[in-house]
Amino acid sequence: MDTAAPLSPTARSTVRRGAKRARTDRADLHAVLDAGLIGHLGVQVGDAPVVLPTGYGRHDDTLYLHGSTGAATLRAATGAPVCFTVTHLDGIVYARSAFHHSVNYRCAVVHGAARLVTDPDERLLGLEVLTEHLAPGSWAATRRPDRKELAATAVLALDLAEASVKIRTGPPGDDERDVEGADAADPVWAGVLPVRAVLGEPEPCPLLPPGAAVPPRVAARALSPAG
Amino acid sequence: MDTAAPLSPTARSTVRRGAKRARTDRADLHAVLDAGLIGHLGVQVGDAPVVLPTGYGRHDDTLYLHGSTGAATLRAATGAPVCFTVTHLDGIVYARSAFHHSVNYRCAVVHGAARLVTDPDERLLGLEVLTEHLAPGSWAATRRPDRKELAATAVLALDLAEASVKIRTGPPGDDERDVEGADAADPVWAGVLPVRAVLGEPEPCPLLPPGAAVPPRVAARALSPAG
Repeated sequence: MDTAAPLSPTARSTVRRGAKRARTDRADLHAVLDAGLIGHLGVQVGDAPVVLPTGYGRHDDTLYLHGSTGAATLRAATGAPVCFTVTHLDGIVYARSAFHHSVNYRCAVVHGAARLVTDPDERLLGLEVLTEHLAPGSWAATRRPDRKELAATAVLALDLAEASVKIRTGPPGDDERDVEGADAADPVWAGVLPVRAVLGEPEPCPLLPPGAAVPPRVAARALSPAG
Repeated sequence: MDTAAPLSPTARSTVRRGAKRARTDRADLHAVLDAGLIGHLGVQVGDAPVVLPTGYGRHDDTLYLHGSTGAATLRAATGAPVCFTVTHLDGIVYARSAFHHSVNYRCAVVHGAARLVTDPDERLLGLEVLTEHLAPGSWAATRRPDRKELAATAVLALDLAEASVKIRTGPPGDDERDVEGADAADPVWAGVLPVRAVLGEPEPCPLLPPGAAVPPRVAARALSPAG
């Protein structure tokens, strides 16, 4: 896939509601996915959808997911149409009317059939990408999966072929009547309360020797925005 | 529904993977839902699931969702089996092996058929609950929906009858071999990097008169944890 190509929406990946919030640059899709830590995977199980949070990683235009080979949802996802959504909540939008209250957000929605990865090299690549997305530097610094762990892990791949991105930013979109008609001395407050995900201070495992140094791969992220 | 009753899982709301992380108190379900600002709604549209982020509000054991009457996903959800999931990411869990890397989180998953609310009083209740969940105090302080806005808004209700809660906390669950076999002088770091959602400084709407006071309903939340 040409990663410089714009998103070419199909019927279901065409944003209809709030179309002015839609983005069609592939770079926007990558940015929203790369900034997240977990997404929500939707799978049809029996006669109803199931939505579960899960980690992920991106390699070019392939998204990798993983889970226990025993997980019913992952089994149901294999080869089936799924939807994978990553959302960042960026702000609470206070308006002058209840109706125009909203949120600022960035959201990527990926549609497609999840492919069970069976090639050993691609399985390792997927697990590396997943680990590095969650914890950069951990793949090199920690013990790699052994044969038993690999056998217990299913790796799924989802092509970023059919996807949509929606982003809302900025102040409320109030009606003119509510802005113009405001009490000049005591107007209803409107604006945005930003929401940010932040990383805190590292909490060492109690089984580490006392005083074990926090490595740069962890320390560099502490007290900074998540993602 | 007896809100003091424990969650009584059905087959699909019984946590199988990571069962030790399952909670069965209804209070845990309420706490996870009440602490969130957005959830992810899964709906079957045609032959595939669609997962979209959306606001919500809870009144006793009813969850209210809303959206434009023109939204295809909301139309597909009406009367249909849906899944609504709220997840809080609480930490990145660094382990001594790639396999045991994980996240700390709180997650509530609700299954059920979404009911289109048609009673005018319940519709208003649902919208009040939704508005107050996102922006406490806003329902009283801002203009209520007028007839045209109400006509454009669909309100859905989802009973909290069938739901599951999973919570992971604490340090990594490393293998004994990786803990015991560690290089005493240079052990692989393991532990948790906490993740928190926080609210920032209010950003006033540019259309407000200069110097308009930030009301307590907004100021009280600023610079505090979200939810």
